[in-house]
Amino acid sequence: MKQSFISKLKKIQRKTNSLLCIGLDTDVLKVPEFLFKYEDPQYEFNRRIIDATKDLVCAYKINTAFYEAVGEHCWYTVHHTLARIPEEIITIGDGKRGDIGNSAEKQAHQFCFDWEFAATTVNPYMGKEAVEPFLQRRDQCAFVLAVTSNKSAKDFQYLNVKGKPLYEHVVAQAKKWNTKKNVGLVVGATKPEELKRIRKIVPDMPLLIPGIGAQKGDLESTVRYGCDKHGELAIINIGRGIIYSSEGDNFAERAREAAIKYRDQINAYREQYF
Amino acid sequence: MKQSFISKLKKIQRKTNSLLCIGLDTDVLKVPEFLFKYEDPQYEFNRRIIDATKDLVCAYKINTAFYEAVGEHCWYTVHHTLARIPEEIITIGDGKRGDIGNSAEKQAHQFCFDWEFAATTVNPYMGKEAVEPFLQRRDQCAFVLAVTSNKSAKDFQYLNVKGKPLYEHVVAQAKKWNTKKNVGLVVGATKPEELKRIRKIVPDMPLLIPGIGAQKGDLESTVRYGCDKHGELAIINIGRGIIYSSEGDNFAERAREAAIKYRDQINAYREQYF
Repeated sequence: MKQSFISKLKKIQRKTNSLLCIGLDTDVLKVPEFLFKYEDPQYEFNRRIIDATKDLVCAYKINTAFYEAVGEHCWYTVHHTLARIPEEIITIGDGKRGDIGNSAEKQAHQFCFDWEFAATTVNPYMGKEAVEPFLQRRDQCAFVLAVTSNKSAKDFQYLNVKGKPLYEHVVAQAKKWNTKKNVGLVVGATKPEELKRIRKIVPDMPLLIPGIGAQKGDLESTVRYGCDKHGELAIINIGRGIIYSSEGDNFAERAREAAIKYRDQINAYREQYF
Repeated sequence: MKQSFISKLKKIQRKTNSLLCIGLDTDVLKVPEFLFKYEDPQYEFNRRIIDATKDLVCAYKINTAFYEAVGEHCWYTVHHTLARIPEEIITIGDGKRGDIGNSAEKQAHQFCFDWEFAATTVNPYMGKEAVEPFLQRRDQCAFVLAVTSNKSAKDFQYLNVKGKPLYEHVVAQAKKWNTKKNVGLVVGATKPEELKRIRKIVPDMPLLIPGIGAQKGDLESTVRYGCDKHGELAIINIGRGIIYSSEGDNFAERAREAAIKYRDQINAYREQYF
């Protein structure tokens, strides 16, 4: 029997001593020119980032839109990228899907069976049926969007419902859906107060926290409020702030330096607060 | 300059005298066996449905999950299917996307530029930034999910916010985003009361209405409440109820019969109420 998602996550976070997740949101327009001599420049970019950072992370997050925008070749790029990531590291397919039952099953087929990501991101607007197909296997986690890192998150997520913001109702439902212990939540690092509130409601759930780096989320409060009581179970995603550290041939080396810097900052805060 | 989305929609609804949209949610597991002698059975299925029904519809809706579940070949299947649909008919790429700005731009690239659907469906949970990239061209419409046709729609969409259900706040925001007159709304046919409320708030917006057929929405109230005051601008989607009318070699013929039946029923209600 495969280990549960949470066991796998804890194991890798302890092994690499890292809560860092690198976002492989590889924009083909930003890939250094020398990689265009290869057949698949996006993959070549990812391969070098993975090889240079795999001892520093607990997870890689692939926002599939960056690949799907390139066309049919995305299938190979995603598969090849996933094959390059060591088995013990968490892979997150960030597609923000969700649909009525029979359609969501097809979406889950793509992410959980074909690509076989260890985790996915799912939009809760359509309710439980939209999320359920992503929760079939206990070794695969669905991160439900609760508070997103963008500015217009407030358009709906903060609306007051019975004295509480909408996102807390999402959190409450996600707790109910968590019968297999494979539900997580997405909470933006740009929203530290919300992170604090949510961690109190779900002390043992994995939280995927984007928004550090280009989006300017606060790392100290992300670590302090995002972790469980053992200083674990937060997956702190940094994409552009690491992978685009240099535009030159040395991009992977620079990405490694940035990853070390972030990992160490995160660990310094972990020591301070846990 | 290209005509606006609404002009194009009105033109085709008048030409074919039809509000019917056929959902090409072609499940490869349900395609008749004789089509598997071809290289792309999903396309062969779609081609026959399109050829048999194109004089009876205003739109075809493609839920991309049914293609993406099959793998990389989906790119060709979607492109070939779109190429088979006459230019004057509306094509809807039903992917229910939405993300932070730079990622949503990539999603929109896939749907609006690469596949070049005339319309898309977008999930509002992440707010305006998630929808904006889909609204760049006035000849392309984004249908924002308001009330979906599934049962668990009530998990969040009906929550009471300042005396009104959440979906009405989505409708109000969508109205604000509609500066180019290319925003529409998705409202399930299984929710006639909500359809009635929403049509009052947005008298001139196109509504995409799924849920007739397999999901058992009510056709009479869909027509009565979904149309604008001229008996137009409702796009009534029927998928499984038409495309799987027969499992045999005569499936396209039977689909045509079912499409005629639905078109005529819709038109009978239009005559009664408008």
